[in-house]
Amino acid sequence: MRLLLTIQYLGTRYAGWQSQTNATAIQNVIEQALSTMFGGSIRIEGAGRTDSGVHARAQRAHFDAPFDIEMRGFRRGLNDLLPRDIRVIGVESVAEDFHCRFITKSKTYVYRIWNDEVADVFAAETSAHVPQPLDVGLMHVTAQQLLGRHDFAIFTVADPEVSSTERTITAIDVAGDGAAITITVSADGFLRSMVRRIAGSLIEIGRGKLEPEAIWTVARWTAPAKGLTLWEVRY
Amino acid sequence: MRLLLTIQYLGTRYAGWQSQTNATAIQNVIEQALSTMFGGSIRIEGAGRTDSGVHARAQRAHFDAPFDIEMRGFRRGLNDLLPRDIRVIGVESVAEDFHCRFITKSKTYVYRIWNDEVADVFAAETSAHVPQPLDVGLMHVTAQQLLGRHDFAIFTVADPEVSSTERTITAIDVAGDGAAITITVSADGFLRSMVRRIAGSLIEIGRGKLEPEAIWTVARWTAPAKGLTLWEVRY
Repeated sequence: MRLLLTIQYLGTRYAGWQSQTNATAIQNVIEQALSTMFGGSIRIEGAGRTDSGVHARAQRAHFDAPFDIEMRGFRRGLNDLLPRDIRVIGVESVAEDFHCRFITKSKTYVYRIWNDEVADVFAAETSAHVPQPLDVGLMHVTAQQLLGRHDFAIFTVADPEVSSTERTITAIDVAGDGAAITITVSADGFLRSMVRRIAGSLIEIGRGKLEPEAIWTVARWTAPAKGLTLWEVRY
Repeated sequence: MRLLLTIQYLGTRYAGWQSQTNATAIQNVIEQALSTMFGGSIRIEGAGRTDSGVHARAQRAHFDAPFDIEMRGFRRGLNDLLPRDIRVIGVESVAEDFHCRFITKSKTYVYRIWNDEVADVFAAETSAHVPQPLDVGLMHVTAQQLLGRHDFAIFTVADPEVSSTERTITAIDVAGDGAAITITVSADGFLRSMVRRIAGSLIEIGRGKLEPEAIWTVARWTAPAKGLTLWEVRY
């Protein structure tokens, strides 16, 4: 039976969802726990290949269980085998041909900024610290230029596996709540580093270091991984 | 000149504000940084002696600077010397006879609970995980019995340094927001473990393991340190 997992993790200690090197990837940790539970070697497929240091509130991944299981007991057993910074928060059974990455309708990422001279100890692992004052209103208004279908090549790094750099952003918001600033981006898909580079440019615009008009021509800065969280995957 | 610091810390890695053993206390870390800045040995006095693992959003501490300093540059220099999980968020000059612990009007502590079958990875360091369903309304109503001046001996451990176990709770609230439950307690002063023992009893009441009527007679459980945050000290 094919099972779809909803997974939460703090990416701080990990080399990302997948890893080409020997560093520990979140996918490997979950595969090891599943292999221990079922015996044999279990492979999982993730919906979003989050980079090293990036977090997830609701990552999705699917795998084929070699035999039927009781969902709630399975979730508890799996969490017992996982480290505390990775939790499986949901398990559901899906069709045998369901693929958690190929059929996503849209995904949402959240980029968090702590905008105060002094960093916040409670937000230190999950937000980027920007001590200089930011114009949140200007960041939000400028971000609206990114809405819709565009070629986002400027906001990514060359990747031979990707055939097109066109994507559709369906919503983008920049909101402030005291020192906590949140950039929320929903799209039909994301290119490598796309949200971190968009966040980098919006921060430069908010600081007055980049003209809003230049958003499509200059993307100098990739904001730190720790500020980014994969928020939601929709099917 | 006497300076009053407002300090934020994540208590996870520390043996509390003060330490009798060789384990690292937050007070020692700040004293070392100040001694490096000023030369010689600087001693600080804290407003609340938080236990090992307890956090602070706005702890207060005072010390005597051997010479005049420029506040903002001082704060930046001090934070540069401190580890990331301790931040000085405010510095102000106070009268030479000001004592941050003796003259407090009141303090507020917040106790955080994550009430869901699965723990939350983002709240894991700053809240206690209670998987069993809690009756938040009953916890709040029962907590109101603790309001006012009472002998809180049942909610503390014997301490020869403390002459009276009477304290006045001026406000106590239990509120839920999804899985996040918060117990907020303000008092003119707190006994050792008092909030954690009150939280422990309220959680037992919320689970149906303790009758609300027994709140003044049975206090079996000290809730985990990591759920507790010193929220505010008022003068």
